[in-house]
Amino acid sequence: MRALTLRDDGVRVSDVPVPEPGADSALVRVHLAGICNTDIELVKGYMRFRGVLGHEFVGVIEEGPAEWKGQRVVGEINFACESCRVCGAGLQRHCPKRRVMGILDADGSFAEYVSVPIANLHTVSERVADETAVFVEPLAAAFEVLEQVHIEPGRDCVVLGDGKLGLLIAQVLHLSGARVLAVGRHPEKLAILARRDIETKLVSEWAPTPTSVVVEASGTAEGFERAVAATRPRGTLVLKSTVGKRPKIDLSPLVINEITVVGSRCGPFPPALRALELGTVDVRSLISERFPLSRATEGLERARERGAMKVLVEAG
Amino acid sequence: MRALTLRDDGVRVSDVPVPEPGADSALVRVHLAGICNTDIELVKGYMRFRGVLGHEFVGVIEEGPAEWKGQRVVGEINFACESCRVCGAGLQRHCPKRRVMGILDADGSFAEYVSVPIANLHTVSERVADETAVFVEPLAAAFEVLEQVHIEPGRDCVVLGDGKLGLLIAQVLHLSGARVLAVGRHPEKLAILARRDIETKLVSEWAPTPTSVVVEASGTAEGFERAVAATRPRGTLVLKSTVGKRPKIDLSPLVINEITVVGSRCGPFPPALRALELGTVDVRSLISERFPLSRATEGLERARERGAMKVLVEAG
Repeated sequence: MRALTLRDDGVRVSDVPVPEPGADSALVRVHLAGICNTDIELVKGYMRFRGVLGHEFVGVIEEGPAEWKGQRVVGEINFACESCRVCGAGLQRHCPKRRVMGILDADGSFAEYVSVPIANLHTVSERVADETAVFVEPLAAAFEVLEQVHIEPGRDCVVLGDGKLGLLIAQVLHLSGARVLAVGRHPEKLAILARRDIETKLVSEWAPTPTSVVVEASGTAEGFERAVAATRPRGTLVLKSTVGKRPKIDLSPLVINEITVVGSRCGPFPPALRALELGTVDVRSLISERFPLSRATEGLERARERGAMKVLVEAG
Repeated sequence: MRALTLRDDGVRVSDVPVPEPGADSALVRVHLAGICNTDIELVKGYMRFRGVLGHEFVGVIEEGPAEWKGQRVVGEINFACESCRVCGAGLQRHCPKRRVMGILDADGSFAEYVSVPIANLHTVSERVADETAVFVEPLAAAFEVLEQVHIEPGRDCVVLGDGKLGLLIAQVLHLSGARVLAVGRHPEKLAILARRDIETKLVSEWAPTPTSVVVEASGTAEGFERAVAATRPRGTLVLKSTVGKRPKIDLSPLVINEITVVGSRCGPFPPALRALELGTVDVRSLISERFPLSRATEGLERARERGAMKVLVEAG
């Protein structure tokens, strides 16, 4: 089959064997897959991943248990062992033995087929189109903020960063009743939120005031320090994206203002699927462009461009 | 009166006017004051403080409201405005207009007399000797961990750092029922905890295992990264001490392991006073040496030495 592979000599579309799922897994024929910033970081060397890239997808089960065959599905990306103490505590996404689709020791979804553990699959309602369903993984990461932090209705929140994840987080917090201010660099991206009655501001015009909950989703070192400065004493800073390298960081404001920093990664699929089914979150406006699998490397290039949002890869 | 003053030309014992407290304050004749690492940082330039140093003390009220006169007292160090929204929310220790005794815009306690707002004073039981009462401020900072983080009985905790604060935190967590491992560099300091049946380990012999709650009280950049590495996924890292300068820090483990970092500073005096009255926390073993106020600069030097613990200044 065709697949976008990352090897020592670079990233390209090549021919690889169709995966052969074990007893606990299913073979999914991929319809559509989404390019994430993590894919771009992986190409740069993050995690030293080698294999088929891609961890956001929607597809149809072609091989697997009878009750799953023909089902249209999305899949959680952390493949847990299901037998260690961490899994026993319900923290499968943190299983120390986990493989991660297209990120760590498991081939990904920029391919005609991908193998996914049955435990990780969720069926997709007919009401959710492929180009909507493909957003479930990043939208789940947005819902993760609500799983970790209790944000009361009416609470003042700032979301820093108007990338894909920032736009999804701002919408999820807004739906939960929080008073959200989204701060970014791109008027056209912030406009997507303004259409949903979310207050927005260009970072150049933003004068931070002490805020209860600040979500850093800009992925820059300045973003982190800006977020710290905007968090009120005893407030919460949700760290949603990592910064490359090791930035020099002044930790003393965390202590002086007794700020709580909550690191946040992958989230729960069910609430994200529900939101997509109900249409409460606008994801379609986040699509920049679609590329066929054969031109997936061009898709990666496009995704790296300033101002680009979600680039989709059509595998089916 | 004599006082240890920090000025542009350095730190010395000099003659300064006796403070003249306003209507809401009292004049305290200082018996005993404690040297804190913060004092050493202030001398190095932290906060650009100028004035009388010192923020840990016990003394007797010489001037003030009739009901307070003659009372032996300790005093909270954050002088709040009591009229802003932050104070209204009960967060006086975070008042944006606060002055801080011996640290920010307010003269401190390495002096014959110190002026303290009535709202900040707590009377000291006869059962608590001066050399015990003088530990209330750092002990309150230890109790702050329990005010901010719910640590269930039996929970596994690591306290990193066997300085004064680390030794107090380890004892407070131990009393609350947590399973504490204290990790430090000084066998003679860790022995104080071992006498209280707290498990201890030299950092050189410590192989971190994933821990629910890690308290970083070593105040080093390596300490922070060590603490991050020791915190289990979804665990809590309490950041109790600041690191000078801006260390290069890798924030990605916070995101990947969804670690919560809780910055923690000053704490509540009443539980600390109660613990001192009950004798449940050993503070006397932490006293390294006592100096008269006239030799307070020598006391500062002594406090800077490796292995030193609490150095006290006798003002009365």
